[in-house]
Amino acid sequence: MRDVYIIGVGTTKFGELWDKSLRDLATEAGLKAITDAGIYSEDVNALYGANTSAGQFIDQEHIASLIADAAGLSELGIPSIRIEAGSASGGAALHEAYLAVASGKYDTVVVGGVEKMTDVPPEEANKIVGGSLDAEWETFFGVTEASLAAMIAKRLEYEGKMKREDYAHIPVVSHKHGSMNETSHFRNSIKLEDVLKASYVAQPLTIFDCAPLSDGASAIVISSNRQLINSSENPVKIVSSEISTDYLSLHDRTSIYSLNAFKRSSKKALESAKISKEKVDILELHDSYSIIGLLQLMELYGEKEAMNLVRNEELYWDKSRPTNTSGGLKAHGNPLGATGIYQAVEATLQLRGKAGQRQVKGAKYVLLHNMGGIGATSVSTVLGVE
Amino acid sequence: MRDVYIIGVGTTKFGELWDKSLRDLATEAGLKAITDAGIYSEDVNALYGANTSAGQFIDQEHIASLIADAAGLSELGIPSIRIEAGSASGGAALHEAYLAVASGKYDTVVVGGVEKMTDVPPEEANKIVGGSLDAEWETFFGVTEASLAAMIAKRLEYEGKMKREDYAHIPVVSHKHGSMNETSHFRNSIKLEDVLKASYVAQPLTIFDCAPLSDGASAIVISSNRQLINSSENPVKIVSSEISTDYLSLHDRTSIYSLNAFKRSSKKALESAKISKEKVDILELHDSYSIIGLLQLMELYGEKEAMNLVRNEELYWDKSRPTNTSGGLKAHGNPLGATGIYQAVEATLQLRGKAGQRQVKGAKYVLLHNMGGIGATSVSTVLGVE
Repeated sequence: MRDVYIIGVGTTKFGELWDKSLRDLATEAGLKAITDAGIYSEDVNALYGANTSAGQFIDQEHIASLIADAAGLSELGIPSIRIEAGSASGGAALHEAYLAVASGKYDTVVVGGVEKMTDVPPEEANKIVGGSLDAEWETFFGVTEASLAAMIAKRLEYEGKMKREDYAHIPVVSHKHGSMNETSHFRNSIKLEDVLKASYVAQPLTIFDCAPLSDGASAIVISSNRQLINSSENPVKIVSSEISTDYLSLHDRTSIYSLNAFKRSSKKALESAKISKEKVDILELHDSYSIIGLLQLMELYGEKEAMNLVRNEELYWDKSRPTNTSGGLKAHGNPLGATGIYQAVEATLQLRGKAGQRQVKGAKYVLLHNMGGIGATSVSTVLGVE
Repeated sequence: MRDVYIIGVGTTKFGELWDKSLRDLATEAGLKAITDAGIYSEDVNALYGANTSAGQFIDQEHIASLIADAAGLSELGIPSIRIEAGSASGGAALHEAYLAVASGKYDTVVVGGVEKMTDVPPEEANKIVGGSLDAEWETFFGVTEASLAAMIAKRLEYEGKMKREDYAHIPVVSHKHGSMNETSHFRNSIKLEDVLKASYVAQPLTIFDCAPLSDGASAIVISSNRQLINSSENPVKIVSSEISTDYLSLHDRTSIYSLNAFKRSSKKALESAKISKEKVDILELHDSYSIIGLLQLMELYGEKEAMNLVRNEELYWDKSRPTNTSGGLKAHGNPLGATGIYQAVEATLQLRGKAGQRQVKGAKYVLLHNMGGIGATSVSTVLGVE
């Protein structure tokens, strides 16, 4: 397999973007990434598009074809494929694009992620988001993603593994980082008590425990073409990309709060990258819900260390374990298909030393985790500079 | 890139399968393919799932995770990804799986395609099928796939390029072949006058010009593992796999009846395979509509030869240019995500010499064409035995 580098990144602002359609967003992000890479449309050999639910959100399937067309790439007949893995679609698309380039089939590929979630009412959008769960055995009975996350939180509290305040810290960190990122959906800082006192989505989770419904698109350009890599500013290497799955329904798992897919994919990604977890300078976790963010820390560092990291406030960009420096899904936003791609955009900015205010000094390795449903699909990616 | 072989195939019957859910169908096809390959679950390194619109048909996204779970592969944490490219999802998934194995990342992969279309009323299903067109610029204004195909037919007749009878031949051939295939949706033979006299879907196209709404699933096992290849019965080589795109909307194209994506992808697939089109023993074309089937012959052989092939009835399994020996989309059925995978199943049966009554003698190469929308995505695949 050939070495593959990220040579360009681009993103739209995330948020409730009433005035922009899916094709506007995708084209904007893609064009920015191509411009950032300093290449032309003719250099692009294929397009991979991550999208979770455009069929339900805007009655549009065949998304990759739509984007290739809107971006003017259909004229050239460029191959274009949509990848879907629930809210892990972005990470999965990056995996596919990485393999396509590593295989030698394509030299340079654009990987974009996009979701347009605000064209339907929020209650309808939440129902659609539930499509990443098991429609027949979970959502049919009224379960939502938030309610599953809430059940997990309740169980962990009941078993004495954590207190309400512990997972409430996660969105506080994300909002702090989000406030320093100009493409964030939310740019306000919040306090622990804001999280605790906000209105409930699914008890004990409040609106500040849950990532928002966002519109947005992000794109990256990856390549194995030596000339393009050398002429790009600070290429970032895709060191490893690993996917794992778990039972789709929570009730099939031996424990409702074990994230086995993440455990397996992150272990493999670190092994493939030949680095220990201590070498990871920045973590981008899938904090769709505060409790799920904390669970990922627990899977990675063990219960005790994870709690210490949270309670000692070590997750900020200028502390020992910078986590979700982008603002995470909570503050930067969660346009499902775009989320995993934006994680790679953030990592690239950090590894280039171009993350502005929230720059983590001397970052060499970033571990990304993009998740589908409540842990049924996990994509772990290590990006690095040497 | 490593050589990749098909070592196992499986399919459900296609049809209106009221008593089977999407997960039943996918699991049945996958299990058959694994059994046919003579391997165990533990041998499978990844799962690629093709599906076009389960989000709209059955409120379920995250399809690949669902299938991995239902098939008992989540226990092992096997990576599972859904590929979508409209009704070319199957071909695109095969492309992705092929690259993943050719790259060296995975040794053995199951590629499945599935669609459950009959859980919603036909008018709703037709609207969902339209999701592969441009929702904003075509379907919003009332256009359906059938109406676009009808416009193309009208235009070609108006320009004097063909007569009504010419494209009516295509479903007659498909039904003849379908009658010899036990997994077909329709097993009845039809006559030219049946096509002409049936009720209209979109004038001049009648119900016999249009592929049905089907349920079904198909799966294949591909591998680069020498031991598994050698122990499998008649491995079939994936000689080449090429994708191309065109403008999504017909009104953006210079001609509404040029299938540029197919022209490009088939040319490239034959070039990569280093064979001329005369070397192709069997064609599996995407005859979603009779007129579209004929257009593909015209793109491949030129107008004059294509007309001769049709008028001289040369497309049957025992004639000079066997086409859609499976029964095609028209008679074997068109469960969108499964269609492209079933084409590979049919080709494998033919290349193994196990296609029964409809066996094409001494077939060495098969060219498959799986199409998304009306020609916006084209996947051309060459399978062969040496």
